[in-house]
Amino acid sequence: MSLVREMCVIGLGLIGGSLLRAATTAGRTAWGATESTVDVEAATVDGYDAGTDVAAALRRAAERDAMVVLAVPLTAVDDVLRQVGEHASGCLLTDVTSVKGPMLSSVRRLAPSARYVGGHPMAGTARSGWESGRSALFAGSAWVACVEEDTDLSAWAEVAELALEIGARVVPLPAAVHDEVVARISHLPHLLAAVLAGVGAQGGPLAATLAAGSFGDGTRVAGTRPELVRAMTEGNRDALLPILDEALGKLGAARGSLASTGGLAATINAGNQAIRTMEELRASKRAGVRVDLSAPEARDGLCALGERGGRITAIDGTVAIGEVA
Amino acid sequence: MSLVREMCVIGLGLIGGSLLRAATTAGRTAWGATESTVDVEAATVDGYDAGTDVAAALRRAAERDAMVVLAVPLTAVDDVLRQVGEHASGCLLTDVTSVKGPMLSSVRRLAPSARYVGGHPMAGTARSGWESGRSALFAGSAWVACVEEDTDLSAWAEVAELALEIGARVVPLPAAVHDEVVARISHLPHLLAAVLAGVGAQGGPLAATLAAGSFGDGTRVAGTRPELVRAMTEGNRDALLPILDEALGKLGAARGSLASTGGLAATINAGNQAIRTMEELRASKRAGVRVDLSAPEARDGLCALGERGGRITAIDGTVAIGEVA
Repeated sequence: MSLVREMCVIGLGLIGGSLLRAATTAGRTAWGATESTVDVEAATVDGYDAGTDVAAALRRAAERDAMVVLAVPLTAVDDVLRQVGEHASGCLLTDVTSVKGPMLSSVRRLAPSARYVGGHPMAGTARSGWESGRSALFAGSAWVACVEEDTDLSAWAEVAELALEIGARVVPLPAAVHDEVVARISHLPHLLAAVLAGVGAQGGPLAATLAAGSFGDGTRVAGTRPELVRAMTEGNRDALLPILDEALGKLGAARGSLASTGGLAATINAGNQAIRTMEELRASKRAGVRVDLSAPEARDGLCALGERGGRITAIDGTVAIGEVA
Repeated sequence: MSLVREMCVIGLGLIGGSLLRAATTAGRTAWGATESTVDVEAATVDGYDAGTDVAAALRRAAERDAMVVLAVPLTAVDDVLRQVGEHASGCLLTDVTSVKGPMLSSVRRLAPSARYVGGHPMAGTARSGWESGRSALFAGSAWVACVEEDTDLSAWAEVAELALEIGARVVPLPAAVHDEVVARISHLPHLLAAVLAGVGAQGGPLAATLAAGSFGDGTRVAGTRPELVRAMTEGNRDALLPILDEALGKLGAARGSLASTGGLAATINAGNQAIRTMEELRASKRAGVRVDLSAPEARDGLCALGERGGRITAIDGTVAIGEVA
């Protein structure tokens, strides 16, 4: 595997734009393409190699054996994958979309020869577009790199090295496990923020005048572009439905308890304890782990590490070095 | 009315402690008392006049005709009100608790001679205790000062002047209107944060590793001391139940739509539009309004201003000067 593989980023919004900056900063030769002329103009003004011809960018990737990173919204993925299949069919391919099972199916259908490793950097803001991006966006954040039964681990290692190079820590997971956990910690928060915003706005100008900390925090991501939120939540429908039911169950139990006994202790104490538990998990001491990527059980070892909340912090030859609580 | 009335603060946590600091900074003679020896010690070390003898602090308030501010949690209010009734029964009384209807009933029952004006500064954090407070906590924030049919407007003006003095803007409202809107923009956010924290924690160590922006924002207030959240939500039961039903209805509609058509456009677009509308309301140009506090319709004028999202920014003699979009 090579640390200096060139890189082609399709999509130059918040994530793709930040990745093009970060990879360039890290010393890679990297170029980007997107149909958004606004983003291309902004990236070019900032001195980056960017254009609107996605096919040309992919052909260049095929010629240079570059890594291709799809950073377009889920709704645009199929269209771009068709172009990958046409212009860069055998390339090392990864992506940054927030749903991994449906993405894997699309790749298998539309670009089956690509050496694909699903990716998802857990970094984002309510903003979007090239102008919102920055080179340091991924520093210290978690970056899921998917491991399936048929994943080529040398390709996986290259994707992991890219993430490590730009400051992220790599969490190896099967697509299905990824989709269930992001439904909990990303897609449900977006839906609750939308619901809270709707209930708040029913309070009219007075609600706008009085809304402060708790409402501002709870609705922050409701400002995200609706098409992005729709793409990720609707795209993760199967995993999201049971999580929505969990939330409805807990909120309904709170309602029932308040109506009957007047008490909310169970809901509030459990929520507070949950936050404390998660903070303790994040702060807990982590032990070193090594996974030999050339061993037959390497895929199981990586996934077991990720599913226990562990992460890879370095790759040394064919050994992935990680830590787990 | 006088700008230099002395002030006695009962309760020296985040809000009471910040108020004692802010009033002292503004030049008032102010003293505080609380049964929390931790807060008293910290306040004394910081150079403030604070003690653990609540009865003595109230007797001093009666002797000096000082304003008494109750800044204890709702669960402690009745006990302190009994002491007010005993030691400072005729005083000018206000409070900073987050539910105003039940508070008004308690005052009428336990300190009926007090000249009471309900108050609620819309400033807070997930932290608590004297050490979390700061003099500038209220700068730029909204401070509800309640107006009922029998409110003494000279007492109301004194409470409003205190809030203005320390940088807040005053929103005049009847207690019942306050309780309905805070159920929307404060109590519901706390319950949704608790529910989200609970669902997230079900994802175990992996959820803790991957949780980022949206989960962190959505659960921030779940870190608040549970007894404080219980006191305000359970204390506002009657207003909170229909708001909880609104939230359950919207979340259930999202669930139904995702399960049946696979679409979440209605929920997500409405949430995004709601946030934009509230931001526009906050940013909109405001026109000046004057309410003559000596006029017979003054109470109606104040409440109409508050219910339309307006606020008082100054008091000049017997005229309250405000602005409304």
